[in-house]
Amino acid sequence: MPVKAVKPSVCPIARSLERVGEWWSILILRDAFRGTTRFQDFEKSLGIAPNMLTRRLNGLVESGLLEKVRYSEHPPRYEYRLTALGRDFRPVLLTLMAWGNRNFASEGIALQLADVRTGVAADPILVDRASLRPLEPLDFRMVAGPAADTQILKRYQTLETLHE
Amino acid sequence: MPVKAVKPSVCPIARSLERVGEWWSILILRDAFRGTTRFQDFEKSLGIAPNMLTRRLNGLVESGLLEKVRYSEHPPRYEYRLTALGRDFRPVLLTLMAWGNRNFASEGIALQLADVRTGVAADPILVDRASLRPLEPLDFRMVAGPAADTQILKRYQTLETLHE
Repeated sequence: MPVKAVKPSVCPIARSLERVGEWWSILILRDAFRGTTRFQDFEKSLGIAPNMLTRRLNGLVESGLLEKVRYSEHPPRYEYRLTALGRDFRPVLLTLMAWGNRNFASEGIALQLADVRTGVAADPILVDRASLRPLEPLDFRMVAGPAADTQILKRYQTLETLHE
Repeated sequence: MPVKAVKPSVCPIARSLERVGEWWSILILRDAFRGTTRFQDFEKSLGIAPNMLTRRLNGLVESGLLEKVRYSEHPPRYEYRLTALGRDFRPVLLTLMAWGNRNFASEGIALQLADVRTGVAADPILVDRASLRPLEPLDFRMVAGPAADTQILKRYQTLETLHE
């Protein structure tokens, strides 16, 4: 079950964290992206207690990021596969990886992204889809959208008031 | 104090989560990015118990994402400011926001990024810094880097073996 916020919120960051805002859940997703599907393989990779792993896997299934699929009938065996929602989480993992590589890779880079065609390492940066401009803080700011509640409207400008 | 992984890891995702892998910490950072610096303002925004807030703020200070700065001598008062490391976390928040907006904005968009000059909403995507190519899974893959340990080497290809 997703972790419940104390205040229900329309904030997209808070809503996202309700689904994955937990250490183990994100490491489970990391392993799912490199092809791990089976309970034993998650357990071995993460060194996590089985009851904790069960809870986190169930949470990710209930949140819709993983689906539990039977891959053997006799005996019944299940695996966990990324859903479309889970696969869409990949940019979050990549920015987290890039932040770690920029700041905590004291021995050098242990894990990175590479162009599968050329084998050249890639450096992930965020840009605007339409203009390809880097999303630098001086150029781009968070603003309240049309579905903002009073709490968000108190804290952020809107597109309309951005220049007032 | 950062949350300790069961297995210490050179994985940049695991290392990053040691610093911020917790629901409240990320919402505190969200608020810090919109200018919140004072305990009372974090408390009001998050609806979080004071002892929990103290713990999370201290954790972010110890992890180096926030610094605690005295802004008044009589009486002594403190505020929490993003460090360079904390500001560098912004792309993670933005990708989390974008994932939430794409998937959980049932009433419409409540919070988004906008071009401060034109007021046009921006849509964050990840690209490679040098080539500006979108980091699609078919084109870019995670690989072990030079500082990978045996665990990562067992699980990921290296740049060298990518084409073998």
